[in-house]
Amino acid sequence: MGGDHAPQATLEGARQALEQWPDLKLLLVGDEVRLREGLVQHGLTGPLESRFELVHAGSVVDFHDEPMAILKEKKDSSIRLAAQAVREGRADGMVSMGHTGAAMVASTLVIGKLPGVERPGLASLMPNLTGRPTVFIEVGANIDSRPEHLACFALMGAVFAEQVLGVAKPKVGVLSVGEEDSKGTTVTLEAAALLRDMDLNFLGNAEGRDIWNGRFDVIACDGFVGNVVLKSAEGMAKMVGQGLKGALMSSLRAKLGGWLVKPALGEFFKQLDYREYGGLPLLGIQGVSVIGHGSSNGHAVKNGIGAAIRAVEGRLHERIQARLSHLAPKG
Amino acid sequence: MGGDHAPQATLEGARQALEQWPDLKLLLVGDEVRLREGLVQHGLTGPLESRFELVHAGSVVDFHDEPMAILKEKKDSSIRLAAQAVREGRADGMVSMGHTGAAMVASTLVIGKLPGVERPGLASLMPNLTGRPTVFIEVGANIDSRPEHLACFALMGAVFAEQVLGVAKPKVGVLSVGEEDSKGTTVTLEAAALLRDMDLNFLGNAEGRDIWNGRFDVIACDGFVGNVVLKSAEGMAKMVGQGLKGALMSSLRAKLGGWLVKPALGEFFKQLDYREYGGLPLLGIQGVSVIGHGSSNGHAVKNGIGAAIRAVEGRLHERIQARLSHLAPKG
Repeated sequence: MGGDHAPQATLEGARQALEQWPDLKLLLVGDEVRLREGLVQHGLTGPLESRFELVHAGSVVDFHDEPMAILKEKKDSSIRLAAQAVREGRADGMVSMGHTGAAMVASTLVIGKLPGVERPGLASLMPNLTGRPTVFIEVGANIDSRPEHLACFALMGAVFAEQVLGVAKPKVGVLSVGEEDSKGTTVTLEAAALLRDMDLNFLGNAEGRDIWNGRFDVIACDGFVGNVVLKSAEGMAKMVGQGLKGALMSSLRAKLGGWLVKPALGEFFKQLDYREYGGLPLLGIQGVSVIGHGSSNGHAVKNGIGAAIRAVEGRLHERIQARLSHLAPKG
Repeated sequence: MGGDHAPQATLEGARQALEQWPDLKLLLVGDEVRLREGLVQHGLTGPLESRFELVHAGSVVDFHDEPMAILKEKKDSSIRLAAQAVREGRADGMVSMGHTGAAMVASTLVIGKLPGVERPGLASLMPNLTGRPTVFIEVGANIDSRPEHLACFALMGAVFAEQVLGVAKPKVGVLSVGEEDSKGTTVTLEAAALLRDMDLNFLGNAEGRDIWNGRFDVIACDGFVGNVVLKSAEGMAKMVGQGLKGALMSSLRAKLGGWLVKPALGEFFKQLDYREYGGLPLLGIQGVSVIGHGSSNGHAVKNGIGAAIRAVEGRLHERIQARLSHLAPKG
């Protein structure tokens, strides 16, 4: 029920996902009356009916709510009930497009953290021209991370890169202000020291530019920095997009050219579009949780469900747990 | 002598600047033999000769050197001697395109900090579609800032916006992970509290996206975050530029369209190009220091000199000092 276009976008995405993955089954968690109203409009009818189930939720966490509201006044919210379904094994994973903070709290406290994980981390897949995104973790505003948190983010990101993106020996870095080992804060320097002793392909410091050039498969950072970098990138992309649009309308010549380049540009911008990834995986919990953008449309919701399927099939949280339990110095 | 294309780019920029600003006089600090060799090639001849002077420097700080090298083995480096000229009043400001860290050390320790400024801050002008850039400070890797440092960055950025960009009552924010006053680290929350009590048009928290939308005239942050955000933006811009170029070569149709849109796109990307600003002003020192990109060409060097001229004419450091000495709670 969360997100700017709920429940239309979620219903639309659900139908697309059911069509794309024939083995998929869905629980649709939300206001039963409103969900039922939208089923026909979004084609959730006929043979698809046997593959989803409605789970009624009495409330929705909205933009103004505190994340912790799901533990108090909004115990019957759709996000909390979805997390409960994962916790109780009625679902393998959950996908949400609403309040990011509430989704993180529901995932962390209701689904529960993995043993050994103090702080789950929200990962973002950053596009580049190599065709293989960089796992950038943590972007969910997990602030004031300690070195061991950064090391854990890096490890979880590496498992994600292996299991979900299919990268062998992912190249791991810690975000800092220079390539040299001596550059960074006390926290990043200590995190790098921890990572050097772990069984990872750790390359050392990554810089801001490395988020976009494919030199690293995984870049770990504090959630304050990650959140700011991610929102900055979104803002810059929006500004550049608007500016390009304006430029391509600025003269008759530009308009004609714009019409000609449209298919090629569309193809390129599709590579960069967050909607193609569908959502951000929260790593370090006892199940799968994919947190989508509030402005997701049906296509993005479908891709979010796809991301959850890949995480479930890659047995992501079990692999993370296994790696954590073997956390020991190299050699 | 610093930068990837020195001394060609610096000589070229010097000549362009002398032509553009008829009252300008320049000290060209560097290897006298190499500088003299380039004078004719870059048109620093004839009537221009009376408007510049060569100052010999025996060494150059290069990429591999530690910033502190200027105090020890490289006391006769061009960056140090340029700073010395400012300190001794032989120059009103300096412009450099070399090692950023060395330029910051030279500016801070040789030119000297303003009384009351514990940490000078490197500011970057971030473009947006309003035509008025946002002053984003600090980007020079001044890490682990305390609240009073962030407040000082914000104040100095506001004076820069007023004096150099001509903004009345600049809108000031502190970078955080949410708009709400409650969002942020202990440091950003305390900085916000200090800023609320200062005689500034303080709007509260800015988010990453606000760096690009013109909602704020000044956004203050810790130098770790600012450096990462700036380098991330540079990396993303490079990636998008390469991707666009590739897309516009991907078919005959795209190539033709690309040729048609080239002037309009060129105009737009010029607005975003760091070379149009020419360099980053270091605020909080007893003079003017503009630190340019290592890859600056002659045009960028000329614009860097222009930025220094505007700072000198705006009496930037005196105004900052005046505002600092009146630092008192409102009302």
